Amino acid sequence: MRPDYRLEHALILTMNADREIIPDGYVEITGDFISAIGPMSELKHYAEPVSVLNLHNRLVMPGLVNCHTHAAMTLLRGMADDLPLDVWLRDYIWPAEAKFVTAPNVFLGTQLAIAEMFRSGITMFADMYFFEDEVARACADAGMRVLAGEAVVDFPSPSHATPEETISHILQLAEKYKGHPLVNIAFAPHSIYACRKEILERIEKESRNNGIPVHIHLAETKGEVENCLTNSSLRTVPYLETTGLLNNRLIAAHMVHIDEAEAGIISDNNVKIVHNPSSNMKLSSGWAPMELYNRYGITAGLGTDGTAANNNLDLFNEMRMTALTNKLVTGDPAAMPAQRAVEMATIGGAKVLGMDDRIGSIEPGKAADLLIARLDQPHLTPLYNIWSHIVYAMHSSDVESLFVNGRLVMHNHEILTIDVASVMREAAGLHKKIESAIKEAIPQPTV
Amino acid sequence: MRPDYRLEHALILTMNADREIIPDGYVEITGDFISAIGPMSELKHYAEPVSVLNLHNRLVMPGLVNCHTHAAMTLLRGMADDLPLDVWLRDYIWPAEAKFVTAPNVFLGTQLAIAEMFRSGITMFADMYFFEDEVARACADAGMRVLAGEAVVDFPSPSHATPEETISHILQLAEKYKGHPLVNIAFAPHSIYACRKEILERIEKESRNNGIPVHIHLAETKGEVENCLTNSSLRTVPYLETTGLLNNRLIAAHMVHIDEAEAGIISDNNVKIVHNPSSNMKLSSGWAPMELYNRYGITAGLGTDGTAANNNLDLFNEMRMTALTNKLVTGDPAAMPAQRAVEMATIGGAKVLGMDDRIGSIEPGKAADLLIARLDQPHLTPLYNIWSHIVYAMHSSDVESLFVNGRLVMHNHEILTIDVASVMREAAGLHKKIESAIKEAIPQPTV
Repeated sequence: MRPDYRLEHALILTMNADREIIPDGYVEITGDFISAIGPMSELKHYAEPVSVLNLHNRLVMPGLVNCHTHAAMTLLRGMADDLPLDVWLRDYIWPAEAKFVTAPNVFLGTQLAIAEMFRSGITMFADMYFFEDEVARACADAGMRVLAGEAVVDFPSPSHATPEETISHILQLAEKYKGHPLVNIAFAPHSIYACRKEILERIEKESRNNGIPVHIHLAETKGEVENCLTNSSLRTVPYLETTGLLNNRLIAAHMVHIDEAEAGIISDNNVKIVHNPSSNMKLSSGWAPMELYNRYGITAGLGTDGTAANNNLDLFNEMRMTALTNKLVTGDPAAMPAQRAVEMATIGGAKVLGMDDRIGSIEPGKAADLLIARLDQPHLTPLYNIWSHIVYAMHSSDVESLFVNGRLVMHNHEILTIDVASVMREAAGLHKKIESAIKEAIPQPTV
Repeated sequence: MRPDYRLEHALILTMNADREIIPDGYVEITGDFISAIGPMSELKHYAEPVSVLNLHNRLVMPGLVNCHTHAAMTLLRGMADDLPLDVWLRDYIWPAEAKFVTAPNVFLGTQLAIAEMFRSGITMFADMYFFEDEVARACADAGMRVLAGEAVVDFPSPSHATPEETISHILQLAEKYKGHPLVNIAFAPHSIYACRKEILERIEKESRNNGIPVHIHLAETKGEVENCLTNSSLRTVPYLETTGLLNNRLIAAHMVHIDEAEAGIISDNNVKIVHNPSSNMKLSSGWAPMELYNRYGITAGLGTDGTAANNNLDLFNEMRMTALTNKLVTGDPAAMPAQRAVEMATIGGAKVLGMDDRIGSIEPGKAADLLIARLDQPHLTPLYNIWSHIVYAMHSSDVESLFVNGRLVMHNHEILTIDVASVMREAAGLHKKIESAIKEAIPQPTV
């Protein structure tokens, strides 16, 4: 069969089990899949591809996996910063969300988020928000891979009146997108404090019966742990264990305030975790004990969290942040070496989302989700070690082109599947309305 | 007089004393200087400029000031990472420096560093290295502003046999560059542990007599403080006070391990300090107490440190890092707000280098050192607050054009004053030699 693309003369970071690096290699893409990979010296010209890209001085690596975000919050990026968490939520984020989280706005905000994520090399993200049908639609349109998690809360959400209604809706969504090449659906109970126990148990049952992943915020703040202890005499992980949700379908984001016993439980139950360094720092939530998780062999990915908290969707930042901050907090310059940060952003993230049989490495038979980045730049010269370069020196803007599921969604920095100018114009228009609404409530200095 | 340039319709962050922001403004440049600034609505067309740039959807702000680096170490970027400090220095950096720090290599490495710094909006840097005459020449050629600090050490340096010889050389350099529009010269005694007391005192005397700034590493590691206590029964700041060097000409980089009494001494003596967040994190040196310095009203700038330790020369990274990490270490989300990080990278840095009468803000009469950045990007949409955008969302690659001293050194991402391709080619060639030399000593995994 004739391949659609052959990428030639690239430095290829495979992220296969041996973490093999091919200095002058090729990758062939046929349909959705990677059909061949190897050194240029071993290329066999059985069938000439439709398109050949000469990638001299380019890096090819798996697309990055953003394991925790709230994509549509791009519309609230920079609305309020440098504030205590309660003021930030109560006076800014919640009033804005109450008024502006509608189906069309979620679609728009997600399109904007996808554009930003494509530009920084992200080929899949796990979302937790409202109107996830719109998130799924935006991703399917743009060619982005997604695990779309509709948020479940005890109180009425912008999309549903009750948690029961939300759960039924998620089951319908899962049915609707069954077998979709890009979209998977998750339950996203917001947290143990926003979902009562019966709801968590109901989600556990449906998750088990239907094989649907569950995406939750867990142990994000000290207050969450203290409240859990007060209400249940248990820390957050043992409390969640009583609901049955601690299993290999659970994606637990943040995991900041965890003790060693809890790390053992997480490991025993094969729960996957997501580290969100920038968000945890910006909101002063604390620091997730990544070296502890590493000792317990816990599968970990990286997340940007939403842009209201970060304020960007850039996993190059998160890789650098996790490598640098783990060195600071442990006092050990050998902690979180560059390679491990890259693993978390690629194959680790794929494992967290239960997708490592399809994505996370460049190997024949896997989906063609990969990024192409320029290396011929002053800040990337000279090149001694590619791991170090990716984590400590590269900018997300070095990503030049991007394939998702065999489709070229960005070429030479130009996004081919979204009308970015129109999306930006619409978002800028909406922002003026949001800003006025917030200003009515609380005067704040803005530009 | 006819202006050379008028930048029109830009969002202007002046960084003047009122931190005034002009949403739709203009800046006129005549010769080296800013000759006018204001809102477009008040523009008077007295004399039409030679060139007009329409900067709709662009930010104009003062060029960034990198207060501490070792520019030529770009050649060693990524040579060795994630290692304990002693192994890193002893087995990698020092052997490489002993063999490869030559006048032509310093010139080359500095050119590469200037290219990277221009691309990320830096218009002035304070350097500490060897062969600083070459650094000065590279900067003068490329149109970069510099405080070139020749390193003084007790032992033979790559450029000089004795510290006395180095001091004489620095005095000659200062004479040579007197009145130069871009180049200033500094004494750069490496540290209190690499310079004996008599040398520090000699530098103090010459600094005082000639009005030459002094740039030093101070209190970078815990070990440095412990050794100082062992040898002198004093912590590092009181020890340095005995040499007379604690005065308003001193630029003290790192300042990690400082107690409150020392902060008081620093403040009383009007010493300027440089915070190097990424370097301190990557080498696990510790965390500088920036909130303490803020309480004492100490003037602080930001530095990237050398690329062997960072591994980039990107003050957008350092702004984000200082804002996020100060929130983490203090547990206070309101610590180091975005505006303060921007101040450190601009007017604060100018004060640290004793240049705030000439640079650091956009005001008539100041030198035209300014950057132009694109705002019409997905990751910068919508725009609620420009401070937050610069620190938490912007990439250094959003910098599009750059003026230094009225000269357009970069336009639409293209550097106009350095043959970047040729510099990169030469650096890549040299890197192969450095890598072989290091491999002979110690086998290490590289690409």
